[in-house]
Amino acid sequence: MGHSSLCERNAKWLVSSFFAAFAATACAQLSPAPEPLHVMPLPSSIQRSSGELVLGSNFHATLQGLHDARLDAAFDRFLTRLDRQCGEIRRAQHDAASGARSLLTLRVAGAGAVVQGVDEDESYKLTVTASDAELSAATDVGAMHGMETFLQLVEMKGGACRLPAVTIDDWPRFRWRGLHLDVSRHFEGVDVIERTLDGMAVAKLNVFHWHLSDDQGFRAESKKFPKFTELASDGQFYTQDQMREVVAYARARGIRVVPEFDMPGHTSSWLLAYPEIGAGENIKSLPIQFGIPQSELDPSNEKTFKFLDEFIGEMATIFPDTYFHIGGDETKGRGWLENPRIAEFMKKRGYETPEKLQAYFNQRLLPILAKHGKKMMGWDEILTPELPKDVMVQSWRGEASLAAGAQQGYTGILSAPYYLDAQKTAEQMFLADPIPADTKLTAEEQKRIWGGEICMWGEQIYPETVDSRVWPRSLAIAERFWSPQSDRDGEDMYRRLRIASLELEDVGLTHISGPEKLRRNLAGSAHPEALDAMASVTEPATFSERYNSQRTDRLTALDRLIDAVVTDPPARQEIAREVNDALNASDEGARRAAQMELRKRFEQWQNAAPKIAALASRSARLNDEQVRAKQLGQLGTTGLEALSYLEMHTPAPAGWLDAGRQVLSEAEMPSGLLRFVFLPDLRKLVEAAGAPSAQR
Amino acid sequence: MGHSSLCERNAKWLVSSFFAAFAATACAQLSPAPEPLHVMPLPSSIQRSSGELVLGSNFHATLQGLHDARLDAAFDRFLTRLDRQCGEIRRAQHDAASGARSLLTLRVAGAGAVVQGVDEDESYKLTVTASDAELSAATDVGAMHGMETFLQLVEMKGGACRLPAVTIDDWPRFRWRGLHLDVSRHFEGVDVIERTLDGMAVAKLNVFHWHLSDDQGFRAESKKFPKFTELASDGQFYTQDQMREVVAYARARGIRVVPEFDMPGHTSSWLLAYPEIGAGENIKSLPIQFGIPQSELDPSNEKTFKFLDEFIGEMATIFPDTYFHIGGDETKGRGWLENPRIAEFMKKRGYETPEKLQAYFNQRLLPILAKHGKKMMGWDEILTPELPKDVMVQSWRGEASLAAGAQQGYTGILSAPYYLDAQKTAEQMFLADPIPADTKLTAEEQKRIWGGEICMWGEQIYPETVDSRVWPRSLAIAERFWSPQSDRDGEDMYRRLRIASLELEDVGLTHISGPEKLRRNLAGSAHPEALDAMASVTEPATFSERYNSQRTDRLTALDRLIDAVVTDPPARQEIAREVNDALNASDEGARRAAQMELRKRFEQWQNAAPKIAALASRSARLNDEQVRAKQLGQLGTTGLEALSYLEMHTPAPAGWLDAGRQVLSEAEMPSGLLRFVFLPDLRKLVEAAGAPSAQR
Repeated sequence: MGHSSLCERNAKWLVSSFFAAFAATACAQLSPAPEPLHVMPLPSSIQRSSGELVLGSNFHATLQGLHDARLDAAFDRFLTRLDRQCGEIRRAQHDAASGARSLLTLRVAGAGAVVQGVDEDESYKLTVTASDAELSAATDVGAMHGMETFLQLVEMKGGACRLPAVTIDDWPRFRWRGLHLDVSRHFEGVDVIERTLDGMAVAKLNVFHWHLSDDQGFRAESKKFPKFTELASDGQFYTQDQMREVVAYARARGIRVVPEFDMPGHTSSWLLAYPEIGAGENIKSLPIQFGIPQSELDPSNEKTFKFLDEFIGEMATIFPDTYFHIGGDETKGRGWLENPRIAEFMKKRGYETPEKLQAYFNQRLLPILAKHGKKMMGWDEILTPELPKDVMVQSWRGEASLAAGAQQGYTGILSAPYYLDAQKTAEQMFLADPIPADTKLTAEEQKRIWGGEICMWGEQIYPETVDSRVWPRSLAIAERFWSPQSDRDGEDMYRRLRIASLELEDVGLTHISGPEKLRRNLAGSAHPEALDAMASVTEPATFSERYNSQRTDRLTALDRLIDAVVTDPPARQEIAREVNDALNASDEGARRAAQMELRKRFEQWQNAAPKIAALASRSARLNDEQVRAKQLGQLGTTGLEALSYLEMHTPAPAGWLDAGRQVLSEAEMPSGLLRFVFLPDLRKLVEAAGAPSAQR
Repeated sequence: MGHSSLCERNAKWLVSSFFAAFAATACAQLSPAPEPLHVMPLPSSIQRSSGELVLGSNFHATLQGLHDARLDAAFDRFLTRLDRQCGEIRRAQHDAASGARSLLTLRVAGAGAVVQGVDEDESYKLTVTASDAELSAATDVGAMHGMETFLQLVEMKGGACRLPAVTIDDWPRFRWRGLHLDVSRHFEGVDVIERTLDGMAVAKLNVFHWHLSDDQGFRAESKKFPKFTELASDGQFYTQDQMREVVAYARARGIRVVPEFDMPGHTSSWLLAYPEIGAGENIKSLPIQFGIPQSELDPSNEKTFKFLDEFIGEMATIFPDTYFHIGGDETKGRGWLENPRIAEFMKKRGYETPEKLQAYFNQRLLPILAKHGKKMMGWDEILTPELPKDVMVQSWRGEASLAAGAQQGYTGILSAPYYLDAQKTAEQMFLADPIPADTKLTAEEQKRIWGGEICMWGEQIYPETVDSRVWPRSLAIAERFWSPQSDRDGEDMYRRLRIASLELEDVGLTHISGPEKLRRNLAGSAHPEALDAMASVTEPATFSERYNSQRTDRLTALDRLIDAVVTDPPARQEIAREVNDALNASDEGARRAAQMELRKRFEQWQNAAPKIAALASRSARLNDEQVRAKQLGQLGTTGLEALSYLEMHTPAPAGWLDAGRQVLSEAEMPSGLLRFVFLPDLRKLVEAAGAPSAQR
């Protein structure tokens, strides 16, 4: 039984949709092109062979070598998911005679570090032949990544679960692949955190950055400083048991937890509870407005550092990770300048600007962190010449800022391009690279860039919408962090993203079902069909657009249609493809099929428009979108007319093109909180129909 | 501004869809018929007046009289939900000047019992006028029920939230309105329990009966007997902290928690952990098969009672409720008869049958329970002459058994008609009454029937399907437990059920979105549309039918289409109405409209059939339903043909009727795990089309 590698190639091509074209040249004589794989993030190296492994009633998986409770639990979760995909896996596993031949063997060399560090070996090797499979890894963490890959290779075909014969050698490009979640502006319960961690495990992300305090709420229970949550959490916080539970849950999935307590600014919640360590602002309640309220810790007061020493010491018993994130962003320092005592302190020490006082504050934190076994991590602003090189900088200002840090000798990670509420497409974020191919950094400097973090800020999300804001786009970014730099094929990324997105719902996320539910709620007792149609081709306005339009604050009910639509919906690519085929497909059948698909859509839009208008007249929650609803109908009509002229090879009447352009231009203008995702493509269709040469 | 009550009537008529007809006679001169209300369960008394209260930016709600942390929290949840329905409620509440006129005033006389008992006063009175609303209640619990009603009265109309002017006087018919959930056969996490409690609060249910141990797992942590969960839970259990959290969560919603530890049978999990208190069965692992494995505690051994004393004492510190459920069902006692020592014990004491030994066991439990402040509750079987009258009997055997108990002087509740996995319709369960109108019981005996409990057993559910098995049907039963006996209008119940069902999703249940998600999973990368079409007109086989077909056991993956469809889907009533209108509507337009609706459905079935067949050929998880898929297509074709003959006033050709009847008969036969819900109605259509008089 030979498993000769037929067409060894760089992984990229072998899983990509371009494969067919390449295979035609390279392997035509050898075999038909194998179906593309669904693995996401793309592995570092894939070799495909002939044949496939069938997971039947003889299924039997065994753990060999060292194994521990963490691996056992991961293996058990793996079997549960495999059982849900294939059925009867648990029964086969249960019934397997002892000593039966193992169909899947896991070999793990060692457990990995007790406290997972940045140097954890996360690699694994997975070999599947037509007779069996073997997964080997140096640590539990690598084994877990390998099990995720195994699950993605499985496909139900011809009544049975199968895996293609394949050899995968895989390891991450970056060691720091994080997701930052702000739970201060809106609180997210432990259930949300845990399902987020489940999603991260699928995406092979390995750092959960937990933004636990900010102006709008202090979310971590301190027993030494109980007023934090008594006075400054609105009752919404994590108990210490819960935080330990989250840390354990994350560790069980190979994920580190880095807590952030943002200081010395963004500390209204601190100062509501403990005004004595503040610069003198009189905080009477948690601020309603988001933004940068004036509130700073007082670096001139020794009590502040004593307080922080005790507090950080307490948190260090809960969060074992080496890194402790001190925030450090957006401290304007107005309170410092306005407080005569602090101003005097600055003068005495020669600190001419608040930045200098903040650098002093950070320097004072260093020995405190070190005392409790922690290294400092912070946002861009902490990067000042006063700080030693082993602090870790998280760049929210951009690639240039990150590169500059690396040149100065600082380690850092990139976050700026991965702000989810900027509503960029999965592809845009996927293509943003912490170390672009054309980087000017030396090899040595490049080594200081450890990866990146996806950022989910909390002002405009709440537990029912967080999933659909984070996923599935985070998968695309996770692939950037994990896969080779050369992996830049957006079309293939989307192909795999669609499948992996469904997998995320299976592990408990609600990024598809959640928005559906919200639309059902918005429709009240009516059928949500029309809202679904609208949602399929719109996406949310950006964070700032929404803020400018709605003046979102802590009291804003996040219950509009914008909360029930997703960024970069699948229809964006579908419509692009359909328009392209409708205009350019050389095959007449393909052209007609694409035109039919478009016709169906346009009719759907026409039908939806008056229904949404009717719903909106009843509900304040929908009436922001009256204009968009009307436009959707007009765009549908315009599209149908364009199709008719194209299909009938009839020139559009005089004035039609101008009218169509007018409809498109109006739809491009901001209105309400939704944006159409198909306008450039519809414009192509309209221009083609209106062109004198439309008679094709 | 007069709020004269225009047409005082029994609540039933005022909210029912029959209202229009009655109003026409009774109130035609006075006012147009008001829109029917959506309140569920139906209140004991409703009086409607003219006008409506608008909840605008002047919204301001205040708590008057006594209030405590529980009420404050309930009020806060109420505002959150109102805010999601109406928007800007929290802002209005926040901005209201102190001393501003209150638009909604809550007056609560007292907190209610620290440990809620069966005598808790749950009544409330809610008065809404065009200028303001007042809710008054004797206790927090009554106030919470009133807030639920308030939320159901709110409707978004003309861009604002409004409530009709109304006076509601409401109190429960039965004091014990429970939901029993088995978490042993499949474990349900704390998140499932908590959302179930949220749903119960909407339904005004007040007892959560937690079936914590059974053969397949012991789910409650004991610190005195740690082996229960170490050896007999597969790691799936509630810590003591979690159980306390659930009790607190329930109390916060006016719900009592009655724990059940089933004994002396159904105790495989006990005996795996502590064989020394068993009758001698050698339990080596948790049983794979459900049913009644041979496993009994040993009543002849004094150690057993010492053990139970300690165990019950420990659990009593966690569960404050007066009642402690000892199970007691289905103890065959074979192990007792086979154990010579126990057989000898029985002989010596003159216990001729295992029933007698179980009665002895129960008698011994009584003082133990009393010592720990508990009263005994158990299933039918505990009712033996040896037991005192203050034990509480839960009847799973039926109304007759319950009535017999009441005649003998025992208090009891009814469960038999409310087994959710019997897959009865909401209406069937709604009409089953713990005390039917034609009861033969005396008034005194009737007082001993305290209510009922919905039963959800755990063999065929897991966290992703439990919601859709429990809801929304439990709302219909909850109405039976709460509302007047005279409330028996199924059509009106369904009208309100559809709306209340959406509300349940809003509070966090997933009975609609869960099955959608599972169908998406079943469809893999294909669109789930065809499965959705199938699911809309099918329902699950019953518990026994599924067991007989699939031999479900602990290893069965509950991942088939049956797990992704719901019992009594809305299409059942819709199709019945459409067929009726298509055949009998006197108005030609109504007849045509109904025929169009049916045509749309039938075409959808025709289209779905080949798509499901294609999916099923790929997936073992769907191939049970190959036959049903084919039938769905045939039924669609038959329906379309019937419509054509009817519409064209053409006699059906010879043989057509027989062929149609054949298709229907085959579809009525059991096959796979799904049942069609529309066959009687389609049969009517086919018969009408095939009748010689079809030329209407």
